[in-house]
Amino acid sequence: MDLSRFLTPITRALAAEQYGTEPPELYEPIRYSMSMGGKRIRPLLTLLGAHLYSDHWEQQALKPALAVEVFHNFTLLHDDIMDQAPLRRGQPTVHVKWNPNVAILSGDVMLVRAYELLFDIEPSLLREVLQRFSQTAAEVCEGQQLDMNFETRAQVSIAQYLDMIRLKTAVLLGFALELGARLGGASAADADHLRRFGVDIGLAFQLRDDLLDVYGDAATFGKRVGGDIVSDKKTYLLLTALESANEAQEATLRQWMGQNAPETAEAKVAAVTAVYDELSIRPRTEALINYYFQDALAHLDAVQAPADRKALLRGLALQLMEREN
Amino acid sequence: MDLSRFLTPITRALAAEQYGTEPPELYEPIRYSMSMGGKRIRPLLTLLGAHLYSDHWEQQALKPALAVEVFHNFTLLHDDIMDQAPLRRGQPTVHVKWNPNVAILSGDVMLVRAYELLFDIEPSLLREVLQRFSQTAAEVCEGQQLDMNFETRAQVSIAQYLDMIRLKTAVLLGFALELGARLGGASAADADHLRRFGVDIGLAFQLRDDLLDVYGDAATFGKRVGGDIVSDKKTYLLLTALESANEAQEATLRQWMGQNAPETAEAKVAAVTAVYDELSIRPRTEALINYYFQDALAHLDAVQAPADRKALLRGLALQLMEREN
Repeated sequence: MDLSRFLTPITRALAAEQYGTEPPELYEPIRYSMSMGGKRIRPLLTLLGAHLYSDHWEQQALKPALAVEVFHNFTLLHDDIMDQAPLRRGQPTVHVKWNPNVAILSGDVMLVRAYELLFDIEPSLLREVLQRFSQTAAEVCEGQQLDMNFETRAQVSIAQYLDMIRLKTAVLLGFALELGARLGGASAADADHLRRFGVDIGLAFQLRDDLLDVYGDAATFGKRVGGDIVSDKKTYLLLTALESANEAQEATLRQWMGQNAPETAEAKVAAVTAVYDELSIRPRTEALINYYFQDALAHLDAVQAPADRKALLRGLALQLMEREN
Repeated sequence: MDLSRFLTPITRALAAEQYGTEPPELYEPIRYSMSMGGKRIRPLLTLLGAHLYSDHWEQQALKPALAVEVFHNFTLLHDDIMDQAPLRRGQPTVHVKWNPNVAILSGDVMLVRAYELLFDIEPSLLREVLQRFSQTAAEVCEGQQLDMNFETRAQVSIAQYLDMIRLKTAVLLGFALELGARLGGASAADADHLRRFGVDIGLAFQLRDDLLDVYGDAATFGKRVGGDIVSDKKTYLLLTALESANEAQEATLRQWMGQNAPETAEAKVAAVTAVYDELSIRPRTEALINYYFQDALAHLDAVQAPADRKALLRGLALQLMEREN
């Protein structure tokens, strides 16, 4: 499926965006961060949302679509400081290339710039959109705080984990789509269905990410297989395994957790994966992904918009899942 | 002068503000930071600005006044991380009491909450106010970045220093007052005069802060005298001294700069202050403070509002300067 007529204006508009000039230490990191690339899923969702209802989707929704992308990159920039991540998409993160103070402050300005990109929205929608954007922004921060909390918390339930990824990842995908829909002229009911489509896709996408860490092909996935296992990350897979493990299996899992010596990493990944296999973690995770995916499609079905335009959103979702149908 | 009928609703509204609940690690630091106190100058300026034009100042301007105060406290929270400041108003800073990650993230949410407090503004003013707020917010970040840059830069001109304090401190005071004026119904010309009054007062106040560090009474001022000298801070006093020093005086200043041993701190303060005295730095700084103060009063004079209401703003400015007239 070719989404280039939507992606091209996004790429062009992002390349033209200036953010500011002086002092360069404040604005260079923003341009650097925005030029790192990425799939631009969120602004695509915004444009596809507007396109469901309007032929003027570019003029109505392009700047707001950039707002969502700038906001998303702001969260990455600040998250990378908190996670002490050295690389983002293979390039040095801002807090490494410059320093943490520069990363804090240029992130702050990115959040301001994200808001500014929304101010040209037609006045009758402005207040509502800004409120929804702000609510979503606070939720994304809540998700990041929960994610950090879970690192040091002994017990995390599966429900808590799902709530965390909903806040940290899924609500912004939902908002991106809802935003475009409202700008294109959707009814409140349709906008809500589309929001829920986006949230479902976000949940499915994050669970798929958890799954691929263990069961993905390293070459395709672009990360070392088992990285989450090595770092004891409380993923859906680990939490589900811990919840359904028998005594021996739980002992195996707990024995490996906290053992972070590089020389035993391979044995750790093998041992934990073996427990996952015994407990059918892979098909169970796939079933939950499919559940969210089917729920997403049901919400899309309920939307009152031309079928050929809805097909583009379905196609994007399939592409995100790297599925054929 | 008694401003309690303006201060009381601010204090009450701040105490009632919730910010959010879960996770507590995200929202407790916001409540902590907002409850640390302070003189609430910025929201006072907003209310006094609205009061110039309207008897409904509380209903028109109270929530937006809080927005400015929440934004100001957000900047303090993030600045304290960057400056590694252990204390703020005698209490542990958020990054010390919790940790830097919590401080970054709860600061981010504070910026979002500041925006949210503006959304009830009447629709005809909303877009303009949000644009001016965002412009001011970016300028405050630019000021903070310049301040950090100056710490490690060998040469800083007086013009650059004044521009830095204008951005870091003064523009927000100007915006706070302009905001209130617009909400109360000021003309564009009046709102601009009031903005410039606020900027002037901010510049005068910051220069007075520089001056009091050296020439203030430690008991009244609440900081150790000469702290800026000990830490080689490039204040207006130091930059002016460096610019007009003869060879011997410059040698004295440069010899002491970078000597940060605690045991020589007293001698350093005495030696640098002696050069300041030789160069009449105190009366020269006082003259610049007075220049900004008189310029502020001229802008206030030009404003078309009742004299008794303007007198409150003049009174607040005098109070900030701790002057009698």
